[in-house]
Amino acid sequence: MSSAYLIGAQRRTGAASFTGIEAATGKALDGDFAITTADDIAQACALAGAAFDAYRETTPEARAAFLDAIAAALEARAEAIVARAMLESGLPQGRLNGELGRTTGQLRLFAKVLREGDWAGAIIEPALPERQPLPRPDLRARQIAVGPVAVFGASNFPLAFSVAGGDTASALAAGCPVVVKAHPAHPGTSLLAGEAIAEAVAACGLPEGVFSLIQGPGNDIGTALVANPHIKAVGFTGSRGGGLALIAVAASRLEPIPVYAEMSSINPVLLFPAALAARAEDLGRAYVGSLSLFAGQFCTNPGVVVALDSPDLDRFLGAASEALKGVAPQVMLTGGIAAAYARGIETLSGADGVAVLAAGPDGDAQCGAARLLAVDADDLLSNPALTHEVFGPSSLVIRCKDAEQIVAVLEGLEGQLTATLHIDEADYPLAAPLLPILERKVGRILANGWPTGVEVSRSMVHGGPFPATSDPRTTSVGAMAIHRFLRPVCYQALPDALLPDALKAGNPLGLPRRQFD
Amino acid sequence: MSSAYLIGAQRRTGAASFTGIEAATGKALDGDFAITTADDIAQACALAGAAFDAYRETTPEARAAFLDAIAAALEARAEAIVARAMLESGLPQGRLNGELGRTTGQLRLFAKVLREGDWAGAIIEPALPERQPLPRPDLRARQIAVGPVAVFGASNFPLAFSVAGGDTASALAAGCPVVVKAHPAHPGTSLLAGEAIAEAVAACGLPEGVFSLIQGPGNDIGTALVANPHIKAVGFTGSRGGGLALIAVAASRLEPIPVYAEMSSINPVLLFPAALAARAEDLGRAYVGSLSLFAGQFCTNPGVVVALDSPDLDRFLGAASEALKGVAPQVMLTGGIAAAYARGIETLSGADGVAVLAAGPDGDAQCGAARLLAVDADDLLSNPALTHEVFGPSSLVIRCKDAEQIVAVLEGLEGQLTATLHIDEADYPLAAPLLPILERKVGRILANGWPTGVEVSRSMVHGGPFPATSDPRTTSVGAMAIHRFLRPVCYQALPDALLPDALKAGNPLGLPRRQFD
Repeated sequence: MSSAYLIGAQRRTGAASFTGIEAATGKALDGDFAITTADDIAQACALAGAAFDAYRETTPEARAAFLDAIAAALEARAEAIVARAMLESGLPQGRLNGELGRTTGQLRLFAKVLREGDWAGAIIEPALPERQPLPRPDLRARQIAVGPVAVFGASNFPLAFSVAGGDTASALAAGCPVVVKAHPAHPGTSLLAGEAIAEAVAACGLPEGVFSLIQGPGNDIGTALVANPHIKAVGFTGSRGGGLALIAVAASRLEPIPVYAEMSSINPVLLFPAALAARAEDLGRAYVGSLSLFAGQFCTNPGVVVALDSPDLDRFLGAASEALKGVAPQVMLTGGIAAAYARGIETLSGADGVAVLAAGPDGDAQCGAARLLAVDADDLLSNPALTHEVFGPSSLVIRCKDAEQIVAVLEGLEGQLTATLHIDEADYPLAAPLLPILERKVGRILANGWPTGVEVSRSMVHGGPFPATSDPRTTSVGAMAIHRFLRPVCYQALPDALLPDALKAGNPLGLPRRQFD
Repeated sequence: MSSAYLIGAQRRTGAASFTGIEAATGKALDGDFAITTADDIAQACALAGAAFDAYRETTPEARAAFLDAIAAALEARAEAIVARAMLESGLPQGRLNGELGRTTGQLRLFAKVLREGDWAGAIIEPALPERQPLPRPDLRARQIAVGPVAVFGASNFPLAFSVAGGDTASALAAGCPVVVKAHPAHPGTSLLAGEAIAEAVAACGLPEGVFSLIQGPGNDIGTALVANPHIKAVGFTGSRGGGLALIAVAASRLEPIPVYAEMSSINPVLLFPAALAARAEDLGRAYVGSLSLFAGQFCTNPGVVVALDSPDLDRFLGAASEALKGVAPQVMLTGGIAAAYARGIETLSGADGVAVLAAGPDGDAQCGAARLLAVDADDLLSNPALTHEVFGPSSLVIRCKDAEQIVAVLEGLEGQLTATLHIDEADYPLAAPLLPILERKVGRILANGWPTGVEVSRSMVHGGPFPATSDPRTTSVGAMAIHRFLRPVCYQALPDALLPDALKAGNPLGLPRRQFD
């Protein structure tokens, strides 16, 4: 019998099923998973809609305790989750243990944010009955949850950007019920995480519709989910094509809704002359470490390097080439991703002016072999397709003739998640005029590090202009993500008895509130 | 010779021109206005793009002084602006004097918000080099302007939602250059306001591209403006059709951009039994005052009343009918709006179950005559088209059999800007369960008043779910509007010399900053 999907508190199965695939072999794993039926998708959404008013008005403390309970329930299943995720994703145990810690850390960060209360945006403007020429009525505002949210699990973070990942944590924190569409590459991992959430829903006495998990391959399930009128926002991390398809569904609804899609980024790294002169070889080796980390399957993978052509750049490239030749082929997340990577490398390698500087050893069809490529800025500027994302352990070095050409390359880039500067003090005059360009292009600018570590914190911005994301006004990592799922409501001259607790005279929730007299 | 439009600091004219129309007569006013050419639209956007990096990094004080200077320049032209607006809009002098005060008040509110500095969202997380298992880098975030903004003047507020209105004020405050497309019904008013802004740009020594004003009838100019790649966000107040057309243009760009469109709202008013019993006649008269104010041409016009059928409701309707018969026909904003109102009333009056309770005296073709209509909830629920907005001095009373039917009517409504409750203490038990529904449907809930007054303040929400607006996460009136035109950027381990002033160690701008250790 197939493993069931989760519609509120119920375990359901449909007539059809699918299996997990072992990333390392491409072979079906034991056990199969029921594919959610159209009726059950509708039922999950209806339950979410029915749960919404009650769930969004639970106290911040109640939702914080719920998030803490999810974290604990995940930890109780840690061994099983990591073991299954290793099979389904091909990622190693250490990485998945770390990712589970990141996932529970995210949940607990949002619990902390809820307890602090700034998220509620409570503002009070008392009545001014004597004001001339007109009195001011009592006016108060707060942020409320937008409604049930659809979350799509990502392929490359089977835990932290998946069933109990950042989108789910921030939506649940905001007061939104969540319906997760599991990524079809990790049905078993997803079900284990989903059961942890369902257990926390029951333990905390919340309405069952607060969480459902739907499963299945293909696009129809996701389309039906986003089209359902109960759903009021969407969180997605994945390909540009996938994101744009969901955005089109959301925009064509009778009531269009926002889609927070994180899609495509090549994360330029800028190498400045003094930094290169001081440590070209160290930078070259560290660069290869970042670009090949977990087969380069990060949204923040350093896909392009921009630098002035120079002997120091050659030193950097020499060290990077040497290091890259030693990068063993790594199992990629899915056979589809491995095949797309191979095609992307083939296209890029064959483009005019692109040279393959170094190649890691090839593995079998499930694996990605590292590649280091280079191109002159002149050739790149005449062929913008060279800056399209190739998801995997490769990177393209762009040699520029002068500072003007660096500006042209940067201005030609689409929106990005990150930009990285390797700089010494002597480089500041060259770097300073580039910062305004980078601010327009990216969500995070970092110095003397690598973009592949994304801190989960208060000031993190994992976002950026299109196509890095569909909405640069937000982030999908860090505390600010809660604002994606909130909207303001104003209350004018409402009697205290009818005001929400967040705005009552006695401040029963103890929220921080801004008052303007 | 035609009056010129404003492309940065230049006055330009094209080959074609159009004239203003006197609202009261439908006849052409003296003087004609050049229609902006496609080349000049592109030039306005290019200048805005060129001005962006410099303008967004002016100090908050510099932008505040600029907004104050615009307010002063408007006041210096007050007499001419109001005189021309009276002709072009048909609105009376007192209303336009008040609206000019609202407009300068908005500009000065955003100047105050800029000086306070919370808008900058400055967050600092110092490095934690000893943290286990990994150190934390120094992380800082701030909000930056999204880019040049296109603003469309509204027909019904020729000053406060127009060239120097709320959208322009909030975008300029955020640090966004603005290209305004004047509403074709008020070219002269728009040019006077545009000249005030251009004067302030020059007086404050800002780049000329910070402001341009383009003019002309038809849709091509607005389409070209929204499609221009320099434009990064759009502010619009107008019809549902107009808003949806701009949203479609924005979504089909290579880089899609947000459109903040305020479109369509019928602003339900709920009358509760105890309030009706206590003051049915007073409420009836006040209702007619609100629905017919300035020919009902407000986004917050009370288009539907929802109440339990009762003898007290009949008292309310009797007083309202009596008052409505005395409402003189009023000149509408344009001939097109007057004709659309007449068609809307005809359609609504002829629908099954709809009764015309009272009619104000008819005027000529430029005028709207007040209408009071009623329908049983049963009929309304079987014909949702009855809740489509009819822009003008009319309102529809929905008689409900019981509390359940009130719930059904409210749940059937689309998104709204406002909901109004007329309640006494005895009504609270009946009202309380309706509040969650209203919170889901509207941006502002008010008690014992009328929705047509919209305070410009910190907690105001002039927004709401679709189709009231295209983005319920924001407001177009009040201090929170600045957030529509901002996006977060994170800076990781950047040396102090390269950090923006908002985040430098010494806090040279004196901004409020949140620190998390």
